[in-house]
This record gives sequence, structure tokens and C-alpha cells, in this order.
Amino acid sequence: MSRIAYVNGRYRDMRDASVNIEDRGYQFADGVYEVCEVRYGKLVDQPRHMARLERSLHELRIAMPMPLASLSVVLHEVVRRNRVQHGIVYLQVTRGVARRDHGFPTKPVRPAVVVTARSLDPAKGKDNAARGIKVITLPENRWPRVDIKSTALLPNVLAKQAARDAGAYEAWYVDPHGYVTEGSSSNAWIVTKDGRVVTRSAQSGILAGITRSVLIDAFEKLQIRFEERPFTPAEAADAAEAFVTAASMIVMPVVAIDGHSIGNGKPGAVAKRLRESFHDFAVLS
Amino acid sequence: MSRIAYVNGRYRDMRDASVNIEDRGYQFADGVYEVCEVRYGKLVDQPRHMARLERSLHELRIAMPMPLASLSVVLHEVVRRNRVQHGIVYLQVTRGVARRDHGFPTKPVRPAVVVTARSLDPAKGKDNAARGIKVITLPENRWPRVDIKSTALLPNVLAKQAARDAGAYEAWYVDPHGYVTEGSSSNAWIVTKDGRVVTRSAQSGILAGITRSVLIDAFEKLQIRFEERPFTPAEAADAAEAFVTAASMIVMPVVAIDGHSIGNGKPGAVAKRLRESFHDFAVLS
Repeated sequence: MSRIAYVNGRYRDMRDASVNIEDRGYQFADGVYEVCEVRYGKLVDQPRHMARLERSLHELRIAMPMPLASLSVVLHEVVRRNRVQHGIVYLQVTRGVARRDHGFPTKPVRPAVVVTARSLDPAKGKDNAARGIKVITLPENRWPRVDIKSTALLPNVLAKQAARDAGAYEAWYVDPHGYVTEGSSSNAWIVTKDGRVVTRSAQSGILAGITRSVLIDAFEKLQIRFEERPFTPAEAADAAEAFVTAASMIVMPVVAIDGHSIGNGKPGAVAKRLRESFHDFAVLS
Repeated sequence: MSRIAYVNGRYRDMRDASVNIEDRGYQFADGVYEVCEVRYGKLVDQPRHMARLERSLHELRIAMPMPLASLSVVLHEVVRRNRVQHGIVYLQVTRGVARRDHGFPTKPVRPAVVVTARSLDPAKGKDNAARGIKVITLPENRWPRVDIKSTALLPNVLAKQAARDAGAYEAWYVDPHGYVTEGSSSNAWIVTKDGRVVTRSAQSGILAGITRSVLIDAFEKLQIRFEERPFTPAEAADAAEAFVTAASMIVMPVVAIDGHSIGNGKPGAVAKRLRESFHDFAVLS
């Protein structure tokens, strides 16, 4: 089956889905994106993703390209046309097409909108989660505005590739004070030996992950003790468990950091429990 | 006259010049670029630009998309088809099209190549240079790999816009030690009261500008004393002159920094002389 994308008002076969070369997303990374999990053909936590999208656009002074209700129709239509039951839907909004010039276009242009969707094999995710993933650490080298979910992802690309080159699945950035910020495409967590779940505050150094915020809201009902504070790679290596969160990975156990096994080197009980119960707290629409 | 672009092997009208939405340049800023001045229909310092392109691509492990000789033919053909006598030619190379995934594509893909060209009015450049431009300063907030001329330019976009919003033309970044690194799209220079030209070393914090390197090589013949060292905004405010360099601006006098006039608030003699003599040292091809 060929894949279908929404591009600036039209549904196109992916092979013909294109944007102008002067789209500022292409020349300047002047745009933002969201990745939303799809479950049973529905969007997971769409309102939170849309709120974050609005915030990212606001920070860049890009107008919302269409009302939220219309955007929701497009997202669902792309999911439907691609017959995605379980997978992800990807949304990118850029400042639009204008003659190349670093500053914002002086005549307002229409923001560009691209939406794609694809199926992910739930069995594959389960397999990964059953084995757990390895992470490496790298010095934080991204700009401070990682709170904006922008497409200026080259540092993240290189970090992810460095992880792969080292036989790992994800790279965790470490800030100049020695604390983990987040992964190249995920938030980073540990579980202490006395069972407290720890992740860094979204006040600085990280993107406010949606899966992260849903989990945090769930901890009280799950009767899980939670601490929002930074941790070091050494604390992670010595922790009972570690895991990462992202819309495309949900909760993914981490079993090694920089070659050191975490806990008994197998996915931890808390991470497993969070992965299994996550969707009890997520909102489908 | 409609503009013509080269896109992945074809010459296209700009309106139809497009790239696939899964071009990694669009989704990840996973690409690099060059801007070359065009003078009398010829490329200025093409060999230096091509050497820097090769270096940027090498740092990102992107293959050269075609032999340099072929790329040169394309650059000249785009200049010719757009009838550019004086202006710029823009070249962008990205890792290519692949299903979205942060890491490099596991199956090698063909790098994408886009070339555009446009005329710039030399009279307008002269006018700007006769008036001089204003700069503001901003805290450096880009990643450390600014030596790679990548399209992950969102920080630069926001800096340039901040300058415009402040009634200035360019923003100079200031590193955590209080020293100017460079402009959002140019290198930064001052001239001391005893006539020494000063700019930061390309060892760290800046892109090795081509106009910058041509000037440095010319100083001996011009009998200009040159110091490669960082300077602070305070030193710039108190300097005899300041200027910026870029392929699209050549040498552009700076007459104010953060609202403080530099020198007598008019373009300086050294900057004027360098602007006038620059092309004696540039290589046309």
C-alpha cells in the first residue's frame, strides 16, 4: 500500500509529497513538529500535543496554520488513509515559503503544514521493551531552547547516530554540571533503590515530553513516589532501574549506560509496570 | 523573468522546484549549504567555498553528491539561466530522502542537491555600506559545531529577527566569557585606534568565513596589521571602526553596537578600503 501525506491542503502519495525548496523549514529549520502515538486508529493525548504545538509556534511567532478542530480532522484523515491502527502520526509546521533571508518574511506568508502517519509493529516494541535498550552519554551540545520542539535536529541526529555507532539505542545528553538532561529523542528517567521515580524538571534543559507529563500525573494514582530533580550518569549506573519515554516508544526500559549494566541488567519492574499501565492514563481521541 | 533552480538533476522553475517531505533537510536540518558571491557572472572564490563544503559534508558523513567539476558546471548553469551578473548563488546539500528516523539511513541514500541564484543590486549594497549598519549583541546560544555550515539555522533566524526588531541589521553573539563570536550570518571585526584589524580565531566559536579568509590572506600585501584574537562588545564600542564580512555583504561597515556609536558613527576608512580592494584578492571562476 502506498503511503499518503497531507501537504498544504492536499492529500498526496508520499512519492509526490513535496514542499518548495524555499520553504523555510528546508533552508533554515524554521519550523516545529509533533509526533503523536496512534492506538486503535485514535490519537493518544492529542490535546496535550496540540497545546505544545501552539506553544512552540508561539515562541517562534508562527501563526497557527488552521483552527485546532481542522487540524484534528487532518490528523485523523491521514491516520485513516494510511490505515494506521497502531503507530504514529507526524505533524510539521514551518514558517512557510519566502525568498531566502534569515529574518522573518516582511510580507506575512502562510505557514506550511505536513502530516504523515505510519504503522509500527506493537510486537517489535514489546520485544525491545522485553530486552531493554542501551544508552550512551554525550556532552549536551544543543541550544538552550530545547523547550521548542523545532526541526533544527542536526545535533540530535548526530547524537542518535553516535549511540548506534556504539551499539546503543539512545544517547543521553549531560549538561556542564554533570547532570543528564534528556535523550536525543526521549526523556530520561531512573528509579532509585528505594523505589522513587526520578526525572529532571522541565524548567530547563529538556523538552516537556507528553508521555512524561502523562506519567507524572499518573504517579499519585499508581502510588509511586516521584522526585523531579536532575541525576548524574553515575547515579543512573547505580540506580535500580532506568527508562526513557517518548510518544513512539511509550516507556522503554534502559538496561545499560555507557557499558555499565543498570540493576541486574534486565528491564526493571517499575518500568514494566509503567509501560503496561500507561494507556490507562492516556486519552484517546 | 521566472527564476530557475537546480533540484536533484533537473532545472526547474522556482515555483515547481520542490523536494520530498521526507528529505532529511526538511525534517532534521540534516544538511549543509554555501553562498557564493557572483560577480560579472562568475563565482567569487569558488575553490574555497567548495573546500568548505567538502569539509562540512565530511563532518556529517554525507558523501559529495557529485564530482566538484560537475558541481561547478551546475553552479555556473544556474547563474547563467538566471542571468545573474552580480548577486549570489546558493547551494544546499542534504543527506537525502529516507523514512523519518533520527539516525542516518541504514541503506545509503543519494544526497539531495539544490542550487538557486539571484541578482543583488550593487547600488543597494553600496548605499548600505555608505551608511553603515547597526548591530546588537545577544548571548551565544548555538551549538558548538558552528564550524559546520549546516542548515540548522533556527537560532540564527531568531537572532537576525531580534536585530531587526531592535532597528539593527545584524546580531553579534557573545560567548560565556564575554567575547564576541560572530554575527548571525557574518563574521565580526573591529579596527583598533592604532589601526590594527582584529577578528576572532576560527579555532572555536565561529564559522571559517570565506570572505574572512581572503581578507586575512590579503593583509600583508595591504600592509595592514592584523590580530587574530577575540574582542568584547565594550572593546568594539570603543574601537575606531567595526565591520562584518559575508559573501553576500563583502565588507560591511558597522557604525553602532547596542545603541553606542562606533568611532564617529560613520563607516571607517579601513573598512571602506577593505571593501574597495576586496575583489583584487578574490578569485573569479
